Amino acid sequence: MSTVSAYAAPAAGEPLTKTTITRREVGPHDVAFDIHFAGICHSDIHTVRDEWGQAAYPVVPGHEIAGIVTEVGSEVTKFAVGDRVGVGCFVDSCRECEFCLAGEEQYCNNPGMVGTYNAVGFDGQPTQGGYSGAIVVDENYVLTIPESIPLDKAAPLLCAGITTYSPLRHWNAGPGTEVAVIGLGGLGHLAVKIAVAMGAHVTVLSQSLKKMEDGLRLGASEYYATSDRDTFKKLKGKFDLILNTVSANLDMGDYLGLLALDGTLVELGMPERPMEVPAPALIFGRRRLSGSLIGGIAETQEMLDFCAEHDVTPEIEVIQPDYINEAYERVLASDVRYRFVIDTATLR
Amino acid sequence: MSTVSAYAAPAAGEPLTKTTITRREVGPHDVAFDIHFAGICHSDIHTVRDEWGQAAYPVVPGHEIAGIVTEVGSEVTKFAVGDRVGVGCFVDSCRECEFCLAGEEQYCNNPGMVGTYNAVGFDGQPTQGGYSGAIVVDENYVLTIPESIPLDKAAPLLCAGITTYSPLRHWNAGPGTEVAVIGLGGLGHLAVKIAVAMGAHVTVLSQSLKKMEDGLRLGASEYYATSDRDTFKKLKGKFDLILNTVSANLDMGDYLGLLALDGTLVELGMPERPMEVPAPALIFGRRRLSGSLIGGIAETQEMLDFCAEHDVTPEIEVIQPDYINEAYERVLASDVRYRFVIDTATLR
Repeated sequence: MSTVSAYAAPAAGEPLTKTTITRREVGPHDVAFDIHFAGICHSDIHTVRDEWGQAAYPVVPGHEIAGIVTEVGSEVTKFAVGDRVGVGCFVDSCRECEFCLAGEEQYCNNPGMVGTYNAVGFDGQPTQGGYSGAIVVDENYVLTIPESIPLDKAAPLLCAGITTYSPLRHWNAGPGTEVAVIGLGGLGHLAVKIAVAMGAHVTVLSQSLKKMEDGLRLGASEYYATSDRDTFKKLKGKFDLILNTVSANLDMGDYLGLLALDGTLVELGMPERPMEVPAPALIFGRRRLSGSLIGGIAETQEMLDFCAEHDVTPEIEVIQPDYINEAYERVLASDVRYRFVIDTATLR
Repeated sequence: MSTVSAYAAPAAGEPLTKTTITRREVGPHDVAFDIHFAGICHSDIHTVRDEWGQAAYPVVPGHEIAGIVTEVGSEVTKFAVGDRVGVGCFVDSCRECEFCLAGEEQYCNNPGMVGTYNAVGFDGQPTQGGYSGAIVVDENYVLTIPESIPLDKAAPLLCAGITTYSPLRHWNAGPGTEVAVIGLGGLGHLAVKIAVAMGAHVTVLSQSLKKMEDGLRLGASEYYATSDRDTFKKLKGKFDLILNTVSANLDMGDYLGLLALDGTLVELGMPERPMEVPAPALIFGRRRLSGSLIGGIAETQEMLDFCAEHDVTPEIEVIQPDYINEAYERVLASDVRYRFVIDTATLR
């Protein structure tokens, strides 16, 4: 075992403070790496505040992790010391169920993927995330970060990137398709960039026009304010695919009405209350409402390679670890363009 | 113009009584036919009672209509006197919008399909439905009833048949797919028969096991009571496609949990209140919720031909017109196996 510095929440709702945690010994199939950067995801805040009701403290958040390999186990074949690597939202899964065998480990049901933090590994030990100096992960759950992507910008791709890439791929975004992105935040701004790189015609639907200049700079062709009722009249029946990156409870009748025949609205966030869905909004137009959860390991690698090839990286604000609590407040106020990334040098 | 007997509701919620209505003169593209049988659809009752809020009285319901051609217009090419024909839920559409051009006239948005009753035709006249002795319809909205299907059994196929056939086709029900049908009523019993004929493995989900013997006789392989909580544990993640033929507000979390990865639950009925859909039920398993509305003209003909080829017909109870009001009460009490069909001989 090794000891490493980390930022942890000692209890629900309390500020994160500096502490030390242990990482397991490097097993035959393990990769140990120094964490250089860790992104701040809204999920981290939900967990730290126990808003999803299943947090175990102390918790070290962080599932957008990028760094450099320092040691590999005796049986490791995929990685070597010095490699640029990343870890996303999970660090293990059963490897036997139909979902794992299909490369959809995120949907593992036996009993489920092992989260990068706030979970318990198959060794019985709690997992702790990327707001720390180093981590040890089985090589099958480690990603290769392409040379052309700086480590700080790679971090958010491991969650925000794959969360948006996977549904865009799954629902065939590309030339000739009309894609809308609801919300221009951490997920939304990557959704725009990736959808544009795939060749889709992209529209941003945001509460106001405040970020319009940004949205168009990121590649969107159109930008509308959802506070304007005319938006829903004007865009009725337009979109083949809508990605909802906003966790709030929206008027689903309004948004489903924006879909073309056989179009799909995909939920990426989890609103607190159930969505209220009027059946006619689905029946007239054979529209679909779905959801999507990150992506499998192979697809995450595919996403990283795609982003390298198409020069897609997130817009980030790099912070020091002692700024995490303030950064959380700014995330909640939507005051970040567009992702905080923690420089973890002082934790190594 | 011609005059014909009919059963009409004079005002919201009042019993249907015998009356006379007029049918338009046979235009160059029109087909006139004697109505022999008309099915009773739950939609008829919703309209008669103004439960969908848009009824104009008096209204002659009936959009499951089968009969024999008595006259054709000078330009008619598809039909001749003596042909066995049917009409379903609509009698016209704009023929120009993308949906009409794609053969999905049911989704016409210019301004919408012209319903067989309780609508206004492009000639400005109100449409009146099949609880009558004869009707005049443009040949492009008339179906051919295959010789092997008796006219009384053909009637319910025009709404209940296409309403279930279309989503089964659209979501690729067939060998190797697991299909569940919620509710074994007018729609549900046809959904079972058609899905079985397509080669799918079919499970019925009914409130109780009262109709289990029927369900298995119709071809279902499995039958479960949804009043039993174990059903939802036992069948978790099983189905590729679930057709919901029940208009009641169900616990969507429970039912979506029965879907396999990428599975779809299709709403065919319209519950009064919006459905309450928990986002995690969609996100975990990338499950889809959709809806489907009858089918286009070409697909309705395809359905009739499919039913003839696979010997699929509804189970019906033939009634006289003076029994309509009592039949309505029995429909509402789920006391019909499985579709009332009115013998309209006395109305001709």
